[in-house]
Amino acid sequence: MKVAVLGFGTVGVGVYEMLAKAGGLEQGPVLVRPGKNDKPFKVTSIEEIVDDPSVGAVAEVMGGVEPAFTYAAAALRAGKHFVTSNKALVAAKGPELDAIAREKGVAFLFSAACGGGVPFLHNLAIARRSDVIRSLGGILNGTTNYMLDAMQRLHLDYADVLADAQRLGYAEADPTADVSGLDALRKIMLACAVAYGTLPTDGLLNEGIESVTAADVAHFQGRGYTCRLIASGGSTEDGVYAYVEPVLVRDGAAECSVQQNFNMARYEGACAGPIVLMGQGAGRWPTASAVLRDLSGILRGERDMFPEGVRRGEVDNSVCRHSYYVRLPAALAGELPTVSAELEGEIARVITEPLSVSQMHFAAERLRESGAEVFFAALRE
Amino acid sequence: MKVAVLGFGTVGVGVYEMLAKAGGLEQGPVLVRPGKNDKPFKVTSIEEIVDDPSVGAVAEVMGGVEPAFTYAAAALRAGKHFVTSNKALVAAKGPELDAIAREKGVAFLFSAACGGGVPFLHNLAIARRSDVIRSLGGILNGTTNYMLDAMQRLHLDYADVLADAQRLGYAEADPTADVSGLDALRKIMLACAVAYGTLPTDGLLNEGIESVTAADVAHFQGRGYTCRLIASGGSTEDGVYAYVEPVLVRDGAAECSVQQNFNMARYEGACAGPIVLMGQGAGRWPTASAVLRDLSGILRGERDMFPEGVRRGEVDNSVCRHSYYVRLPAALAGELPTVSAELEGEIARVITEPLSVSQMHFAAERLRESGAEVFFAALRE
Repeated sequence: MKVAVLGFGTVGVGVYEMLAKAGGLEQGPVLVRPGKNDKPFKVTSIEEIVDDPSVGAVAEVMGGVEPAFTYAAAALRAGKHFVTSNKALVAAKGPELDAIAREKGVAFLFSAACGGGVPFLHNLAIARRSDVIRSLGGILNGTTNYMLDAMQRLHLDYADVLADAQRLGYAEADPTADVSGLDALRKIMLACAVAYGTLPTDGLLNEGIESVTAADVAHFQGRGYTCRLIASGGSTEDGVYAYVEPVLVRDGAAECSVQQNFNMARYEGACAGPIVLMGQGAGRWPTASAVLRDLSGILRGERDMFPEGVRRGEVDNSVCRHSYYVRLPAALAGELPTVSAELEGEIARVITEPLSVSQMHFAAERLRESGAEVFFAALRE
Repeated sequence: MKVAVLGFGTVGVGVYEMLAKAGGLEQGPVLVRPGKNDKPFKVTSIEEIVDDPSVGAVAEVMGGVEPAFTYAAAALRAGKHFVTSNKALVAAKGPELDAIAREKGVAFLFSAACGGGVPFLHNLAIARRSDVIRSLGGILNGTTNYMLDAMQRLHLDYADVLADAQRLGYAEADPTADVSGLDALRKIMLACAVAYGTLPTDGLLNEGIESVTAADVAHFQGRGYTCRLIASGGSTEDGVYAYVEPVLVRDGAAECSVQQNFNMARYEGACAGPIVLMGQGAGRWPTASAVLRDLSGILRGERDMFPEGVRRGEVDNSVCRHSYYVRLPAALAGELPTVSAELEGEIARVITEPLSVSQMHFAAERLRESGAEVFFAALRE
């Protein structure tokens, strides 16, 4: 099967090179921007791919919702299988693309959009066919894991580890999507849609790591906790819950062994029990390997990851409750229902009574609106 | 697809119950021993299954090589898909069953034979189609992991944790296959065959945990190491390496977070990098869930886990080298090339120079032939 590649950046080059060696697959044309077509296999218009009857599948690794969606829809309508690593595209337009693919009887697969080399969505899609997925989630963003791990192990401050991560290529020049939790949120949206047939929309909550300090990390570490940015999802009566927030796990928990920019995804099957998958969540070769796994799966009959009729649905994050660690101005500590508080000059570090996820995220929003600096993390006992 | 089940023990009951709920699958007849057919769906002769045209697939969960092999061959020859949780069967007769299945165009799948609920072989089979598997292995036996974990956390001696494991149903009345490493060895044989097309035979080495003592464990623990029974495999120029031995890993390594009777499997892809999978390696529902995943995969076109033409091959365990911790009679410590030795009365605890796996296993065999009590574990720095 000849595979066209849309995009020739870090991942695109990896996919193109792997195609030369994979059984049953063949290098096709590569779509690049006008002026970048310096090799005969590079083309600059999507029509050259969509109208080429020798192309059996299209692998999109450009990123962004447009023009990726227009290209994807055109490829699927032309009867070509479509594989992507683009989480923004699938989070925004997944149900539409799935419907076109089913109508045309071709594949729509996106393993590489969540977890890089870690085969999370693939295994979720398989598990939900014969088991009930009770919950899912994990460490789905390598940039923030690298940063939190470095802060804890090297006792560095946030700004320094961010600069290090940028220098090493683990963080982008504009790191907002990673450090705000938005990247992890998009991934948990996809995982919920694969597991439950509901792509969560309104009501999603994401708290990132922008406000964590070296003093917070030292405080956790001294009490036997490690901080990780964790995405969580599951089904509720009417829809799903889905949120991202920093979590304090006890030293010795599996999450603590996730170092550097690795990812750790998990799901719990009613029968299978808890299943954990770890590996490299980003980078040229891990991400390209996930694209190739999907392409190779098409040869064996794989066609879909979403359940038939996947649709958008409401999020209810009031169903999950934890105690939280909150660092905030001492003068505002009374705003939260706390079970303990430590004062350090103007700063209070409190442990709250169990609060729902939405209560805590909204409380932090209110406190910040009044100008307060706040960091919070769920406490997992 | 109607599925017949061979065997109605712990796993068989789980498979039968899950079939009632899984999409596209249906409960068929269940083969039991004569006299045990106390329900209309139970039959006592394999012919009633093989000759039943309504049966599309057979799931075997009896264990043992015979009569499982005769039944499997008959089912495949009758054009029925065959799924098994039986590692002894696949280790002994896998290539023959794969050849019959390919000739008949039906499926031969055995996810549940390695890792229970952990989808190890499935992911290996997929990964090797588009990537190169550099090495594989992990904690593949839950019984010994439960025992080593309890020895370290509760400071119990071997005999006591074995008795506990038997009481909890984690170890069988005759625990030999688990504690000798043979069970883990069979699993790494299957993994090598899936990844490399070579089912390793002659030259396999397995060292179990029968000779570990509370004093050994206290010694490791005091030095920041945790002991795990780890299976290792990989390809060599002419074949594969495959062995099982206790390994000392540094506290904080992912293996240390594998507690109780959990399993942790891993492989390293040239492109994907290291991929780790954790979950419950045994028990009714985890194992049944793996059987159901395979059956559900057949509906989507999955047919094989072994590469076409899988064959038996030689094992060369001289290619892997580590330093070893060895506890042996002080009088014999000079028999090994050591870099350090601690004496405790009649006992020596030594660290060896790097030795090949075969050198170490044969050296221990020679020392034991002379009547010495010896425990050894590879040192992973």
